[in-house]
Amino acid sequence: MTLKSVAILGSTGSIGTQALDVIRANTSLFSVSILSAGNNVELLIQQCIEFKPKYAIIGNKDKFSQLKEALIDTEIKVLASVDGICEALENATSDIVLTALVGYAGLKPTLTAIDQGITIALANKETLVVAGELVTQKAKEKNVAIIPVDSEHSAIFQCLVGEEQNPIEKVILTASGGPFRGKKREDLLEVTKAQALKHPNWSMGAKITIDSASLMNKGLEVIEAKWLFDVSGEQIDVVVHPQSIVHSLVQFNDGSIKAQLGLPDMKLPIQYALGYPNRLPSDFERFNFAAYPTLTFEAPDKETFVNLELAYKALEQKGNSACILNAANEIAVDRFLNDEIKFLDIAGLNQYCMESYQFIANPTYEDYVATDENVRELAKNWTNK
Amino acid sequence: MTLKSVAILGSTGSIGTQALDVIRANTSLFSVSILSAGNNVELLIQQCIEFKPKYAIIGNKDKFSQLKEALIDTEIKVLASVDGICEALENATSDIVLTALVGYAGLKPTLTAIDQGITIALANKETLVVAGELVTQKAKEKNVAIIPVDSEHSAIFQCLVGEEQNPIEKVILTASGGPFRGKKREDLLEVTKAQALKHPNWSMGAKITIDSASLMNKGLEVIEAKWLFDVSGEQIDVVVHPQSIVHSLVQFNDGSIKAQLGLPDMKLPIQYALGYPNRLPSDFERFNFAAYPTLTFEAPDKETFVNLELAYKALEQKGNSACILNAANEIAVDRFLNDEIKFLDIAGLNQYCMESYQFIANPTYEDYVATDENVRELAKNWTNK
Repeated sequence: MTLKSVAILGSTGSIGTQALDVIRANTSLFSVSILSAGNNVELLIQQCIEFKPKYAIIGNKDKFSQLKEALIDTEIKVLASVDGICEALENATSDIVLTALVGYAGLKPTLTAIDQGITIALANKETLVVAGELVTQKAKEKNVAIIPVDSEHSAIFQCLVGEEQNPIEKVILTASGGPFRGKKREDLLEVTKAQALKHPNWSMGAKITIDSASLMNKGLEVIEAKWLFDVSGEQIDVVVHPQSIVHSLVQFNDGSIKAQLGLPDMKLPIQYALGYPNRLPSDFERFNFAAYPTLTFEAPDKETFVNLELAYKALEQKGNSACILNAANEIAVDRFLNDEIKFLDIAGLNQYCMESYQFIANPTYEDYVATDENVRELAKNWTNK
Repeated sequence: MTLKSVAILGSTGSIGTQALDVIRANTSLFSVSILSAGNNVELLIQQCIEFKPKYAIIGNKDKFSQLKEALIDTEIKVLASVDGICEALENATSDIVLTALVGYAGLKPTLTAIDQGITIALANKETLVVAGELVTQKAKEKNVAIIPVDSEHSAIFQCLVGEEQNPIEKVILTASGGPFRGKKREDLLEVTKAQALKHPNWSMGAKITIDSASLMNKGLEVIEAKWLFDVSGEQIDVVVHPQSIVHSLVQFNDGSIKAQLGLPDMKLPIQYALGYPNRLPSDFERFNFAAYPTLTFEAPDKETFVNLELAYKALEQKGNSACILNAANEIAVDRFLNDEIKFLDIAGLNQYCMESYQFIANPTYEDYVATDENVRELAKNWTNK
């Protein structure tokens, strides 16, 4: 493998830091072209000193001068905000960009990277949820590969290598079920932030952990799968698998199913995306059936976890529906984490926005931007009457 | 896919008849060049009339004239015995040969087919067990693909497509555990033929069903896996999985595991081998987690099922050890089915032959033939004193 130059957008988050662990363990294979962070300027500075990227970008403009000053004696160019990321992507040479920003903010940089012909390691599912049609079409035009980093989609992607000529009959996304698996609506009326943030298997950021508890994460993944693998909603199943060992499955049109398995450790799909098509040797802890003698599977409870149903609905409606759902949900999670709304209100708010906001059948990029902006306002003002 | 011409060796057995079902359902994709059977001349005649091969071969010479007579008004050339199979392979044009003969008899036709450059769909594991080194080396020289039909090896093969550049860390063969799973030696002293022939999941021929009950089948598969996938004994694990849904797994050197799953139905791996690299649409019943909410995995009991241990030992010793084990076992199973020895004697006889017969470190083809012949004699005369 020749040296790959990697841009990491969201380098101080859970995915970003683990990606840098992978790069640190494989310095003969990877160099770093760009590091960007939203707020954590202290860690970004440390990372820049260690990995010496061409560009460092801080999302929060208030912290720009702190970053600039800290890196004054280096050759690293310092920029701010999403526009800064795009400028860096246009000017630094990168072979692959890991989009690990949180939420909708990932869309513009992803589109810029595709324009530059840079392979996308996609850890920002909202990009595909919001504007999957736009992004995948552009990637096809530019012949840019999108390699998913989500463990479920990485699993499916891994199962599909060498099967390019064979039609997919179905993809089956596994879900841990989150901390509230088995609970009914009445059990969830008063759950706390701390309870929702306690994921049984995966250690992840706050937004995705709440999304896992509400099954919105799985809903977003259903939409993501649609765009990544060019399948319809009817071809996407979700099965709850509390042990999180089988990361997802693909069924082909001969009836054969392939699955990818492993311990729940995000480093593996991150490393896979960075190394693809080569697997890199790792010392990650190995899965052993002795520790997992029983793997269980059950149907998701869509009545309790309404978000999953909303996602299928958005997929069916197409247009800007998924964009509405995503914007609503980003605000809903924020408001839940700020103790402004209750746990079940997340789905309530999402449903309200989907029902209230104007449906656009064939949205342009500008329509997506406007939908996102307006739905956020709508969601901020929603109250559970 | 262009029309493939298929030779089926062992067309009246379990694998052979299912292969013809697949061909019958895909007549635009497959034609039949050769059909051969051991004894069942009535069914072979029917199959010849339906599928119109270029050659029909009967193993049992006593039935040659019956076959000849029945096909007198056709253009089908009629031959007898293993030499007849080889003659047909040399003269009929075949794209792929399904070797579904039982036992050691598959070796010579397989070598002939490789010489002719015909792709091998290998359903006769004894070929690789007896002379894996010889067969795989020859296949490499002639650039002939060997596509396994055993569900376990087909699973691994399916998981390896597109992963050619990625080293295998481990293969994990699943085993149903057979009808005597959980039993100890003292429980197995007096088990009957009928009990041993009752496989919980798979409907197969008598020889392989007994081998499944004694775990010899899994042992033979361990040796088969060694040759098919170029791994060492330490890289092959066996895990008992009573539901027979996960057909086997591969672990790569990044720690990622891929598995192939499905209902236990031999038609799928047969069709896969015939269609490879294309999967053919099928109406086979689909797997559904709702019917299998729990999948379990446990370590095999090598103390009770000594045959599995013997296979690992043969693998370690190399040379003619696996050939000895296979010849002993073919006779042992025969003698068990003839009520001459008891169930536990199968492993006893096998162990005796491995310990008694002369070890040859670098056997030639002639050494294999002699080993096979002599060990059969030894095994026929063995008594449990």
